[in-house]
Amino acid sequence: MKGLIVATHGNLSRELVRSAEMVAGPIESCHTWTLNPEDNVTENEERMIEMINLFHEEDDIFIMLDLFGGTPSNLILKNTKGKNVKILTGVNLPMILEFAMSRDSLPAEELMEVCEDAGKYGIKNINKMLQKGGRNNG
Amino acid sequence: MKGLIVATHGNLSRELVRSAEMVAGPIESCHTWTLNPEDNVTENEERMIEMINLFHEEDDIFIMLDLFGGTPSNLILKNTKGKNVKILTGVNLPMILEFAMSRDSLPAEELMEVCEDAGKYGIKNINKMLQKGGRNNG
Repeated sequence: MKGLIVATHGNLSRELVRSAEMVAGPIESCHTWTLNPEDNVTENEERMIEMINLFHEEDDIFIMLDLFGGTPSNLILKNTKGKNVKILTGVNLPMILEFAMSRDSLPAEELMEVCEDAGKYGIKNINKMLQKGGRNNG
Repeated sequence: MKGLIVATHGNLSRELVRSAEMVAGPIESCHTWTLNPEDNVTENEERMIEMINLFHEEDDIFIMLDLFGGTPSNLILKNTKGKNVKILTGVNLPMILEFAMSRDSLPAEELMEVCEDAGKYGIKNINKMLQKGGRNNG
């Protein structure tokens, strides 16, 4: 089974998944980890460990982080050592939508590649596109 | 003056900016436009137009969207025709952080390039990085 954890500063993870679900419908086995200034650090790490432990040894756990570096990234790297995790940073909506659309049709390694690609290809300079006359509307 | 509008499905825009501000401090002249299922379509578009009209003709309005295509993208393209806007899609935290860090030091065209690059370079496959032995922690 493939699952997803989105872990970010603030409540960004929760709203990323909510927006993805607005577009693509419910995403199963998807958990969000948030980090807010008022949070208790120890409880927050325990919450992350519990989330990771929801998965079984044979599962592929996809983890999408906001940034490489910083607390969410550091805690994830610390608490997933030796586990079957696939970690991407710079999460954006196209990356999550690709996960939702392709999770059932692709093996985990390939899914990792297409999610990374979808995130990058989703970043477009619309001014350049319009200058090239490619398209003038979404 | 340079300003930023982040426009997305759901409240993603708001949480992206909130998370960016948790990391980088307050981002001035930054507005967020949200789109939720319960919203009134006409009022929502008016809210966008008002937001765009907060800027003056000589300002550089940076617009970061969650997706290319879909309602936020379509409404932005419709309502910014002839205006001095710079539009990027696939917004993620590294893109906004780059805007916050570089807005005062770079001319608008260059800022657009570095924001696009920061978004893309922020997307990393950590498994590949660890395999290459590049780094083992954030």
